[in-house]
Amino acid sequence: MAHELIERHHATLESALVAFAARDYWSPHPETPKAYGEPVDLAALQGRELLLDQPGTDGRVGPEPENGGERSPFGPELRVSYPHASDPSLLTAAARAAQPAWAEAGPLLRAAVCCEILHRINARTPEFATAVMHTTGQAYGMAFQAGGPHAQDRGLEAVACAYAEQTRLPVSAEWTKPQGKRDPLRMVKEFTAVPRGVALLVGCNTFPTWNGYPGLFASLATGNPVVVKPHPRAVLPLALTVAVAREVLADAGFSPDLVLLAAEQPGEGLAKALALHPDVRIIDYTGSTEFGEWLEDNARQALVYTEKAGVNTILVDSTDDYQGMLGNLAFSLSLYSGQMCTTPQNLLIPRDGIGTDQGPKSYQEVVADLGGAVGRLLGDDTRAAALLGAIVNPGVLQRIELAEKGEYGELALASRQIASEEFPEAVIRTPALVSLDAARDALPGECFGPIAFAVAVDSTAQGVELLRDTVRDLGAMTAAAYTTSSEVESAVVGACLDAGVSLSLNLTGQVFVNQTAAFSDLHGTGANPAANSAYCDAAFVASRFRTIEVRRHS
Amino acid sequence: MAHELIERHHATLESALVAFAARDYWSPHPETPKAYGEPVDLAALQGRELLLDQPGTDGRVGPEPENGGERSPFGPELRVSYPHASDPSLLTAAARAAQPAWAEAGPLLRAAVCCEILHRINARTPEFATAVMHTTGQAYGMAFQAGGPHAQDRGLEAVACAYAEQTRLPVSAEWTKPQGKRDPLRMVKEFTAVPRGVALLVGCNTFPTWNGYPGLFASLATGNPVVVKPHPRAVLPLALTVAVAREVLADAGFSPDLVLLAAEQPGEGLAKALALHPDVRIIDYTGSTEFGEWLEDNARQALVYTEKAGVNTILVDSTDDYQGMLGNLAFSLSLYSGQMCTTPQNLLIPRDGIGTDQGPKSYQEVVADLGGAVGRLLGDDTRAAALLGAIVNPGVLQRIELAEKGEYGELALASRQIASEEFPEAVIRTPALVSLDAARDALPGECFGPIAFAVAVDSTAQGVELLRDTVRDLGAMTAAAYTTSSEVESAVVGACLDAGVSLSLNLTGQVFVNQTAAFSDLHGTGANPAANSAYCDAAFVASRFRTIEVRRHS
Repeated sequence: MAHELIERHHATLESALVAFAARDYWSPHPETPKAYGEPVDLAALQGRELLLDQPGTDGRVGPEPENGGERSPFGPELRVSYPHASDPSLLTAAARAAQPAWAEAGPLLRAAVCCEILHRINARTPEFATAVMHTTGQAYGMAFQAGGPHAQDRGLEAVACAYAEQTRLPVSAEWTKPQGKRDPLRMVKEFTAVPRGVALLVGCNTFPTWNGYPGLFASLATGNPVVVKPHPRAVLPLALTVAVAREVLADAGFSPDLVLLAAEQPGEGLAKALALHPDVRIIDYTGSTEFGEWLEDNARQALVYTEKAGVNTILVDSTDDYQGMLGNLAFSLSLYSGQMCTTPQNLLIPRDGIGTDQGPKSYQEVVADLGGAVGRLLGDDTRAAALLGAIVNPGVLQRIELAEKGEYGELALASRQIASEEFPEAVIRTPALVSLDAARDALPGECFGPIAFAVAVDSTAQGVELLRDTVRDLGAMTAAAYTTSSEVESAVVGACLDAGVSLSLNLTGQVFVNQTAAFSDLHGTGANPAANSAYCDAAFVASRFRTIEVRRHS
Repeated sequence: MAHELIERHHATLESALVAFAARDYWSPHPETPKAYGEPVDLAALQGRELLLDQPGTDGRVGPEPENGGERSPFGPELRVSYPHASDPSLLTAAARAAQPAWAEAGPLLRAAVCCEILHRINARTPEFATAVMHTTGQAYGMAFQAGGPHAQDRGLEAVACAYAEQTRLPVSAEWTKPQGKRDPLRMVKEFTAVPRGVALLVGCNTFPTWNGYPGLFASLATGNPVVVKPHPRAVLPLALTVAVAREVLADAGFSPDLVLLAAEQPGEGLAKALALHPDVRIIDYTGSTEFGEWLEDNARQALVYTEKAGVNTILVDSTDDYQGMLGNLAFSLSLYSGQMCTTPQNLLIPRDGIGTDQGPKSYQEVVADLGGAVGRLLGDDTRAAALLGAIVNPGVLQRIELAEKGEYGELALASRQIASEEFPEAVIRTPALVSLDAARDALPGECFGPIAFAVAVDSTAQGVELLRDTVRDLGAMTAAAYTTSSEVESAVVGACLDAGVSLSLNLTGQVFVNQTAAFSDLHGTGANPAANSAYCDAAFVASRFRTIEVRRHS
């Protein structure tokens, strides 16, 4: 079985390693739904009991909402139930017990098993797409791509990176040191990658698989068992993931308890209890700054990888494709109702306007034209719903309401409610655009959801400084700029290198600042307050294992 | 100049990268004194003013002991003076100001400059040897090798590892994503390694260069300026290092303030003040567990790499070279009076004795024979002094006195005072050996200095468990075992992989458990409480920089 798995996934692993180093486009996971057969209706998921045969189970989470069952942002209850552990220590104990054989398996077999997990997840992409859609509120097309193949890509990227880092040193090496006229000293040295211990994945509501797979697979591939604590509103995608992982692990002759689900009943606070458990040595987290900082401050026994919140900023100086820019920006602001950690929020535009291929445009014109572009993009309700998805939680809706009352500043574009025949209960809203002036208004902090801020600035130079300060002080997952000037480009590149954020320049087509591609783009940098790590670089995996040397004379 | 430096060190860097991956013996730094010309007398160092032309200097440290001047463990005052900064913030500010040009230089030029620093340090090895000897108490031969070429090897290893990690991603990559019948999406993506910020090196008393160079060069090579805070008793070796680094940096057209000395007057507590400075983003520390833990707990704005204390353990089960084993152990216990973080402390020996090529030996015989081997090794005072060096501080001497009073258990071998004609004031002591029984006595915790413990254990199996528990609970930099049994070998390897310590097996010749070779052996593992990192793996360097991406359509 081990040999067969390694054979089966050898070419994929090799290609992933090549792609990781080359950064060209590559994916073994087709992104079009037609590659995967029939869609899976929500009804096919509803009523399932994903009890997973886990140790320590004393009951279930769900299916009723009052028992932790999920409700889709599109309306329906999911009515799925999950195992509930009587004590989180039983999960970590089961994980620890499973670890030795997995540690002994070595990097190559572990990588092959991880590839097989991703392969089986990939084959069930339509099911994951529906699960992601009805837990995150992403529209189906996005849930399919981001929750399916793109998440799988990020998982495979972590597997490849983990494999590469664990094999930098040879398994065995001869050491021969000359001693002048005497015989040389000769030794054999063996190097073994050993895991750190139990890893904890604390999942997020909006991208449970895309943001979950890098940490999950980086930890697993480096020999660590993983306890998966999903966000209470987005359990199903990670529960399905755990189910597949357990099945593959058992098939490969390992304990399924190398991957465990820690679902929680309402108010249980399981993430904190697990995070402080002495056996938990690695934590991956995506979510609020508040809880991310709590983890960093309190889970001192663990390596903590966090992706928190930030304020993504776009500087608009000039463009040679005004319509392309407006269309690209409109799409970026609209996709998943701006509920991405990568959605741009603050658009800095010189008060005296910008140069374009359609002549100079005043600040007011740019703001109005952007509003127009958003309106055109989302003019058709069906198309709009397919782009926007549903509002993920009441907090986002409250902020939209505040924006509409003018609480954030002058409303330049109102948010529109989109009616859905398919999901009449869903709250689907187009983005609001608020206009501010940096001479008068403080730059807004994070305002998660479909609310963007156009900010008039004194000059491009001031915009560059505000971008730099925002990234430094508040963090950012993304930054972008539009300019035809090489001087401005150089200044904004300098500010981004300095403040520590990756930059997208002059996006006017079908690549969007919100989106990064595994094997090519880094997601986050770890160099500003929004995140302490990136998907996926050596720093993300190299500390998840340690190397032990055994030496002897040969 | 830049191009010329890169040319000059290209072959060395390439060889270092190959050696790092192959783990065979390699060094560009000869380890025999005759390769370096005349020795440098202490008198040639005494009276120097190493004021370094640093910013913020308001006075000097030294040369008088009451002003922070050093006194050699061999007796003489060093009478060297160093710059004193009026405020540590002036040092971090100068470092920050120097950073941008260094960041912009890129990994290859930085590596070349670091190679040049090491090259010039290497050329001055006799001077460094004397400086290390008279600050650490190492005998000249050891100060020469460990403080000179071996430390330079560890520095170069860090430079090579840092270069490798910074160049895993291409500087620029094309990304072409097919779009079916439409034109593919094409982008150019640039990846830039950026430094984290000011690094702080907190040096140790016993190996200022050997333990200091990995962190210093890993930080510098990844673009971070470094403030060097030496141990108050071992300033000179790091002050000379800073002087050479500043000279090379200036010659290469960079600000010398990329490397700064933070010498302190008595009681100033400069390490704490610097460690908590918000601009300090990386800390490397070697020293006591207490201060290492303080740094980990309090310097939360920084990445903290610590090497603290542990209890190194040797399991003696059986040997086919009894005399070789005794000789090797005697040397390991004696070298630098056991004042190495890698010196074995607890020797676990079955109560019923061990099998050897000279027939079975009882526990008492092994202890007596080891005492005899130490006695023979150190029988000649001149030779003994050349191996032992001087006791580094009064705390070590106090522990020897406690051992002699029987406070630690039955004294199996008394420590002997060695008289030195050259240094009549020096305290030179042979190791003491204390005999304990695990059935009656608790295993001793760390007892730094020339005091080893022979511990009678019920069985080899119990010894394996005690070794595992000691490493897990108290940490260890090294472990060793002697056995002719493949079962025992397998058990002890398993315990070491499990507890997280590297293992030397059956050392009976001229390789000693205390010593590790750069480019081949890892020093520490980061997997047990003695250290949170190792010299030198990817994990030691990969987080010292971050990668920023800039992408645009091509």
